Amino acid sequence: MFDLVVMPDTLRVACCQTAPDVEDPAASAAGARAALRDAVEAGAQIVLLPELAHSGYIFRSAEEARAVAVPADGELLAGWAQEAARGDAVVIGGFCELAEDGRVFNSAAIVDGEGVVAVYRKLHLWNDEASWFTPGEEPAPVVDTRHGRIGLGVCYDIEFPELTRGLALAGAELIALPTNWPREQVSPAGEPTPHLLARATAYLSHVFVAVCDRGGEERGGGFQGASVIAAPDGAMLAAAEPGAGVQTLVADCHLDAARDKRRGPRNDALGDRRPEHYVTT
Amino acid sequence: MFDLVVMPDTLRVACCQTAPDVEDPAASAAGARAALRDAVEAGAQIVLLPELAHSGYIFRSAEEARAVAVPADGELLAGWAQEAARGDAVVIGGFCELAEDGRVFNSAAIVDGEGVVAVYRKLHLWNDEASWFTPGEEPAPVVDTRHGRIGLGVCYDIEFPELTRGLALAGAELIALPTNWPREQVSPAGEPTPHLLARATAYLSHVFVAVCDRGGEERGGGFQGASVIAAPDGAMLAAAEPGAGVQTLVADCHLDAARDKRRGPRNDALGDRRPEHYVTT
Repeated sequence: MFDLVVMPDTLRVACCQTAPDVEDPAASAAGARAALRDAVEAGAQIVLLPELAHSGYIFRSAEEARAVAVPADGELLAGWAQEAARGDAVVIGGFCELAEDGRVFNSAAIVDGEGVVAVYRKLHLWNDEASWFTPGEEPAPVVDTRHGRIGLGVCYDIEFPELTRGLALAGAELIALPTNWPREQVSPAGEPTPHLLARATAYLSHVFVAVCDRGGEERGGGFQGASVIAAPDGAMLAAAEPGAGVQTLVADCHLDAARDKRRGPRNDALGDRRPEHYVTT
Repeated sequence: MFDLVVMPDTLRVACCQTAPDVEDPAASAAGARAALRDAVEAGAQIVLLPELAHSGYIFRSAEEARAVAVPADGELLAGWAQEAARGDAVVIGGFCELAEDGRVFNSAAIVDGEGVVAVYRKLHLWNDEASWFTPGEEPAPVVDTRHGRIGLGVCYDIEFPELTRGLALAGAELIALPTNWPREQVSPAGEPTPHLLARATAYLSHVFVAVCDRGGEERGGGFQGASVIAAPDGAMLAAAEPGAGVQTLVADCHLDAARDKRRGPRNDALGDRRPEHYVTT
């Protein structure tokens, strides 16, 4: 699928753009795990899965979402950890979370070979998600993983520059975003919206941005399949062709480059901020 | 140069991409004023000029910048007001400002037919600008003009999403940015950086964004000539072709559209913010 040569000091990032089907959660979960396994076996060290990778997206009711929700300490993420352990990888993917108190969240987890490293509950819910998910109650995290400092968001979160900038300020070298971008969302001329936003977000905070989108259709709704890996200069290192559906994007990223925020000889993307002069409310 | 038909309820926005020359400030100022006059005569209601439109950019010393600096209540902006008065226009342009206390700022003004409406002193200075300008000490303003609510920034300011988001939160329908974008600044694959950032900024806060860049060369340094007018959906309504140099971009903008921040049936670009969960330092 892709070659095994990894440059020294780089990390191989993979976005496994799968095609879950809300009508068949078992197949969706199996498809995500198979794509993850393939990516790890092919040498990827940081592997992303889409939002709600095991469950599909277009629920019809809160009950239906609850029926497929799983705890963070359950078999789903343990399975991802088993795949991660095959190659010392870090896995980032979205899942439908059943919390201990019974609430259901649209969450993303960071998992390594030893288990769950972090769980984030999506702060900004899109459209009907608000009918079946509780919005998150904690900031989006930045996690020091065995493969770099990873900031975490989910889909619509990328439309809040406060959140993505906050991840960069907290030290993220890579901002990872599992997404399910609906096909009917109008894209500005020229490129899918996730590509535009990933590139701009990467450029503005001089970080890597990896968006793992999904393909396929469910219940009459399609998805863009617009995964992308953007570099700190705003260039796309890898990008899914619109409509390509299931595929795995790969890019070798020198994450250390994201620590250097200099812009030319006298400027710094974060150091030049003038926070005392920003309007925030 | 462009036709005179204006749609009802729209405002005609023009970016006069001129080519100042720091070696010839008189010609630079005259060129800016002539382009402004042409745009007003052709029916533009909001007319932008570049950063430091009358002086040129590549100074060699603080003394040289000071020698061309002018007060906000001087002849330069009075001349722009005269041009604005010919067509009930609002003019936004950058100028080298001599403050009452003798300090020199990289400023932008909003001017209408009655005179100066607002002056903004650039908060984020780029490269050698820090050697001849004092950084601004007040937030970037949003001004209720006769032609809509205009937020103001200058060039490198667009790289600070805190600033542009703040302008949107303060009610800007159009964010206007005079720029002098150096040609040697690397652009990410695919498009000039000002185009990427204008589109993303417009999309993220559902506002219009007008960047008035400059063309030409000075003292061995060239400029991108990357003016752009972006719509709230992130599309480019008008964009200069790289290398085109002197030209005037025009777009008819329904500024009211920027007041509606809805995204689909249940979402709102600003209303969905979760400020209590953002990291800002």
